[in-house]
Amino acid sequence: MLIDGQHYRTIWLKNDDPTVVQIIDQRNLPHEFNIEDLRSLEEAARAIKEMHVRGAPLIGSTAAYGMYLALLNTSEEDIQSAAQSAANILMATRPTAVNLAHAVQDVLAAISGISDKEEAVSKALETAHLITESSVSHCRSIGEHGLELFRQIQQKKGVRVPINVLTHCNAGWIACIDYGTATAPIYAAHKEGINVHVWVDETRPRNQGARITAYELAQQGIPHTVITDNSGGHLMQHGMVDLVIVGADRVTRQGDAANKIGTYLKALAAADNDIPFYVALPSSTLDFQLRDGVKEIPIEERNSDEVHYIQGWYNGRIYKVRLTPFDSPAGNHAFDVTPARLIDGLITERGICEASEDGIMELFPEQKLLITS
Amino acid sequence: MLIDGQHYRTIWLKNDDPTVVQIIDQRNLPHEFNIEDLRSLEEAARAIKEMHVRGAPLIGSTAAYGMYLALLNTSEEDIQSAAQSAANILMATRPTAVNLAHAVQDVLAAISGISDKEEAVSKALETAHLITESSVSHCRSIGEHGLELFRQIQQKKGVRVPINVLTHCNAGWIACIDYGTATAPIYAAHKEGINVHVWVDETRPRNQGARITAYELAQQGIPHTVITDNSGGHLMQHGMVDLVIVGADRVTRQGDAANKIGTYLKALAAADNDIPFYVALPSSTLDFQLRDGVKEIPIEERNSDEVHYIQGWYNGRIYKVRLTPFDSPAGNHAFDVTPARLIDGLITERGICEASEDGIMELFPEQKLLITS
Repeated sequence: MLIDGQHYRTIWLKNDDPTVVQIIDQRNLPHEFNIEDLRSLEEAARAIKEMHVRGAPLIGSTAAYGMYLALLNTSEEDIQSAAQSAANILMATRPTAVNLAHAVQDVLAAISGISDKEEAVSKALETAHLITESSVSHCRSIGEHGLELFRQIQQKKGVRVPINVLTHCNAGWIACIDYGTATAPIYAAHKEGINVHVWVDETRPRNQGARITAYELAQQGIPHTVITDNSGGHLMQHGMVDLVIVGADRVTRQGDAANKIGTYLKALAAADNDIPFYVALPSSTLDFQLRDGVKEIPIEERNSDEVHYIQGWYNGRIYKVRLTPFDSPAGNHAFDVTPARLIDGLITERGICEASEDGIMELFPEQKLLITS
Repeated sequence: MLIDGQHYRTIWLKNDDPTVVQIIDQRNLPHEFNIEDLRSLEEAARAIKEMHVRGAPLIGSTAAYGMYLALLNTSEEDIQSAAQSAANILMATRPTAVNLAHAVQDVLAAISGISDKEEAVSKALETAHLITESSVSHCRSIGEHGLELFRQIQQKKGVRVPINVLTHCNAGWIACIDYGTATAPIYAAHKEGINVHVWVDETRPRNQGARITAYELAQQGIPHTVITDNSGGHLMQHGMVDLVIVGADRVTRQGDAANKIGTYLKALAAADNDIPFYVALPSSTLDFQLRDGVKEIPIEERNSDEVHYIQGWYNGRIYKVRLTPFDSPAGNHAFDVTPARLIDGLITERGICEASEDGIMELFPEQKLLITS
C-alpha cells in the first residue's frame, strides 16, 4: 500500500544486501517513519517482542525471516540444533498470535533433515518468502470476499450515504505485509467506488488504531474518524455503524477469536444492536488444536508501563508522558476472546464462513485429518 | 475525604472572604493539586464548561454558587432579570448532567419574587449551601445503602479474598462534594474492614479514572489497579470482577442512565457474564420528565482535540501530546446511555431500587405528581 504515494510492504530483504532484512519500525508512527535493518536472530526477536513490528501475519513473516537470519549467522555445527534454539527464542516473544508458531514450524519442517548450512539457509529464506507471499495473496483474497458485504449493504442503503464500518486496533496492511486483513475489504470497496467511512477505535494502551490505522487510511485517502475505545456502543445505538470488521491473533476451530483487548466489548455492542460483526483472518491465524477460546487461548500480559505512560508528539519530538498517579498500579492484558456466538462470520482467503466448527471445516476440510485433540 | 492526610471538599466559600468561591481545579490532577478562586458568574461558568470541575453533583453545586456570584456582582437593577441571564449562561455550559439544571432552578425558585438584591444574594447563597450539604448527606447515604451489596458478596466469597469492583470514570468524591456516588459504598466497605480491590477504567478521552479515581483511592489507601477501557470485558469473562458500580449524569424515570461514554459497553459485558451492575446516584440526578434515555437524553459532543491530544506528566511538567496523524479527524461523544434492562439496581440516598419506573416511583412517590409528560 501507499506511504506518501510510494508503494511499500512492511518487511523485505534489503535491495543490495540479502543478509539484511528490513522492516518499517512502527513504534513512532504516524509521527516518525523509520526503516530498520535486522541483521540477526536477536534483532528479529527483539523487533517482535518490543513491537517494532506487530500484527499476527507480520509477526509470522518476521519470525520466519528471523529463522533465516539465525541459520545464516550461526556458528553452530549442528544446523538442526541451531534451528531449534532459534525457534525457542522466537516462540517465546509473544504468546497469543498463533501465526508466529505456524511460521516457525513451517521453517523447521522445510529444513527438517538438512545438515548442510547453505542448503538450510536457502530453504529457510525460501520458506520465509513463501509465507510472506502467501500472506499477501491471502489478504488480497480476504479483500475480494469481504467486498461482497459492502456491496450488500450498499444495495440496502443506496449509494448516496456512506457505509460506516468500525474497526478496532490495526488489522491493516501495516499489521500484515500488504492490504491488511480487516482493512482489505475496506480498500477493495473504496477502490470499487463504494462510499466508505471508517470509525477507528484508538485502541489503548498502544493506540494502534489512532496511530497506525488512521495513518494507513489517511495515506490511502479513505474517509475516517478516530474515536475513543469507549465510543462504539453509543454510535451503534444511534445507527451510525453498519458493519464491524476486526482482525484476529488466533481463532479456534469453533470460531472463538482472540484479538486486541476490547474487541469483545464491541462484539457485545454489535450483537445488542443487530449490527453485523465480522472477523477477517488468513487461515494461518486458525488454531485447529483449540476449541474453547476463552478457556484455552493464552492471553499475553504486557508491562504495566504501557498503561501508565502514553506516547505522543509535542513540538517535533516524541514524548512518553505519565497518565496515572505514581503510587497507583496498572494492569495490562493485551488481548481478549470474542466467543463465536457474537461473530456473524469469518472472512478468510477461501471465502466467508460461519464462526463455528462446521463452518470452518467446510472451508478447510483438509484440517479434519490434522486435529489431534 | 483526604488529600495528603488533610480533609477537603471540592468546593467551599473562602475562609476570610465570602465573596470568593474556591474549588479544587481538577485539570492537572493527579500531578498538580491547585485551588482556584471563582469571583464571578463568568469564572464559574468557565470552570464548569472547561472542566476545572466536573461530575454531575459538583457541577450542580458550582452552578448554584455561580448564581450566587452572579447576583452578588450584578449591576442590573432588575434582580429577576439578572438571575435569568445567569441561569441561561450556566445552563448552556454542559447539556447532559441534569443536576446543573436542577440546581439553577432551585436557586431561581428560592429567589422568586424577590426584588431586593441583598435578600436575593443571601437566598441564593443559602440555596447553594443547602444543595451542597444535601449532596454530601445523599452521598453518605448512598454509601450506607451500597455497603449492603459488599456485605452480601463477602458472605458468599468469604473474608479472605478481595471483592473486586469495577468502576468507570470518576464518580468519586472529587466529582461530588464529599464521599462520591459510585465510590461511597467502596469507602464505606473499606471503613468497615471489608477487603476491597477496585479496577479503575482509565476513561478516555479525559482519563478521569486514571487521573482522578486512582488518585482518590490512593489517597484513601484503597487497593486498586488502573486498566484501559478495553479491559473490563476480559476481566469479567475470567471471574475477576464481582460487582460494577458507576455514577450517572442523568437517569430517566424508567431507569436509563446517561454516564461517561463507555459505560454501556461495561454494562453489556456485566450482563453477558452475570455480574451485578449498579448505578449510584443522588435523586438530583433523576430526570422524571424523560422516559427513553437513548432517544431523549441530549449527549454532549466535545472538542475533538480531547481525542487528538492527551495530557500527562513528563519531567516535572504537564504536556499535551498529539496521538493521531495531523490529517485524521476525530469524534468525541462524551456520554452514552445504558438502558435500564442492563442495570441491576439504582443506589440512591433512599435505598436501592430496581431500574424501572415502578422501582423508582416506589422510592420517590412524591414525583408522581410532578411528571408533566
